[in-house]
Amino acid sequence: MKEMHSIGPGRIVRRKKDGVLEYLRDDLTIEEPLEIRIGDKPLATTMRTPGNDDELAAGFLVSEAIVRDRSAIAGISQDGDNRVIVDLAGDVKLKLSSTQRFGTISSSCGLCGKTSIDAIRQSFPAIESTDVRIDIKTLLSLPEKLRKAQSDFSRTGGIHAAGIFDSSGELKIVREDIGRHNAVDKVIGRAFLDKLLPLNRHVLLVSGRASFEIVQKALGAGVPILAAVSAPSTLAAEFARESNQTLIGFLRPPSFNIYSHIERVILEA
Amino acid sequence: MKEMHSIGPGRIVRRKKDGVLEYLRDDLTIEEPLEIRIGDKPLATTMRTPGNDDELAAGFLVSEAIVRDRSAIAGISQDGDNRVIVDLAGDVKLKLSSTQRFGTISSSCGLCGKTSIDAIRQSFPAIESTDVRIDIKTLLSLPEKLRKAQSDFSRTGGIHAAGIFDSSGELKIVREDIGRHNAVDKVIGRAFLDKLLPLNRHVLLVSGRASFEIVQKALGAGVPILAAVSAPSTLAAEFARESNQTLIGFLRPPSFNIYSHIERVILEA
Repeated sequence: MKEMHSIGPGRIVRRKKDGVLEYLRDDLTIEEPLEIRIGDKPLATTMRTPGNDDELAAGFLVSEAIVRDRSAIAGISQDGDNRVIVDLAGDVKLKLSSTQRFGTISSSCGLCGKTSIDAIRQSFPAIESTDVRIDIKTLLSLPEKLRKAQSDFSRTGGIHAAGIFDSSGELKIVREDIGRHNAVDKVIGRAFLDKLLPLNRHVLLVSGRASFEIVQKALGAGVPILAAVSAPSTLAAEFARESNQTLIGFLRPPSFNIYSHIERVILEA
Repeated sequence: MKEMHSIGPGRIVRRKKDGVLEYLRDDLTIEEPLEIRIGDKPLATTMRTPGNDDELAAGFLVSEAIVRDRSAIAGISQDGDNRVIVDLAGDVKLKLSSTQRFGTISSSCGLCGKTSIDAIRQSFPAIESTDVRIDIKTLLSLPEKLRKAQSDFSRTGGIHAAGIFDSSGELKIVREDIGRHNAVDKVIGRAFLDKLLPLNRHVLLVSGRASFEIVQKALGAGVPILAAVSAPSTLAAEFARESNQTLIGFLRPPSFNIYSHIERVILEA
């Protein structure tokens, strides 16, 4: 066995299954801070995987109910590697209440910046009744489609993905990030910038768990069906039920769980 | 197949591997907000799994460099289900700079509340050189010990764990939470309340990934060896290297990766 004394930047030592140690180049998911400003006003700093920062900023503003219409954003520009500046349209007033002061947001934080328990629930309306439904075969096909569209997952094992599908199972938008919430903000931001909101005939699939915040972000974009590869929380299931959202968890073919509004899943073969 | 029309609170519909659908009671990880106050001043709201809220609050204050010595906290009391009040000792002044204004923290957010990129790194000193080391056999034994000590993981699949071990592999403290950061704050908070800080002869194991914030929290508690079952980020590895911390990732026996300061791992058989 080779003697190993130190590990330089960009290098790792791996213990293989047979017990042999080897030096390798690392291949980790990039995590860097991004400051989101509205004009010259810092709004939030989030730990994210660089790329699609304009979408992340737009999706964040949608998720936090700061903007609703595409016309509210006049422009989004990058200022260096780690800052993005959103210019609101001239007639849009930024009214940040005490519930919308944001600080730094970690790579998996979607709810940061609110100062009291009462302020945690956004004021999005429940999903309106629509006739959108998904059949089991289509539902079971989604995780594999998301995985195939991911670029980095298999390499690093440390990145989350979010995908927006139509109800026939066609993948429309996929984005990756070290943070689950960022990946969701990016796909919603892309849809918002393309004037596709509300996504009221679509399915949002996330590669990890479904926390309360993920369900809330889906609601902000008008998504009626949310599926997660891992577990939802109690609050996620409760919120989805109240918001007329279908929540599916542990979507691991051939199995899955339905937590709310089963009427949007076509159960007959 | 039974016709299914709706799902009541606390119930789910599961599609089993054989395609049969069944109603079950749900068994999800509880996610509820906790407001942390210092006296009458709201400091942060975090989405957490209830339980050990005093430890969570104490660990949060340590991780954010608000308190360092056990004597700084005069008392911690619960005010209803979702609020905890920390009373600082009379001679401890709370000086929250602009870098320490906290808002709501999601179930996996450890870095919330800072307002600029420059302020993200806490000002903890690097780990001092010590002779603490761990051998491979002990290291490989840790994940199974953590799993066995977890109460809820196998039931819900939606909860993270953090464990503090001594360098001989004995589990000292284990805590669970829907949020990785909360689980870490809880174990560090418990150690802090028991006057065990700095944990400079200990290993911290987390059940998920190691983000920058997790490495920073370990540093705040003086932990020289941090191990994660999943991937670290680039920033986590870089920060650990700079802070004289040994960072181990993908600890999945018989394999693991070492990202920094290999000298604390005894590689000889």
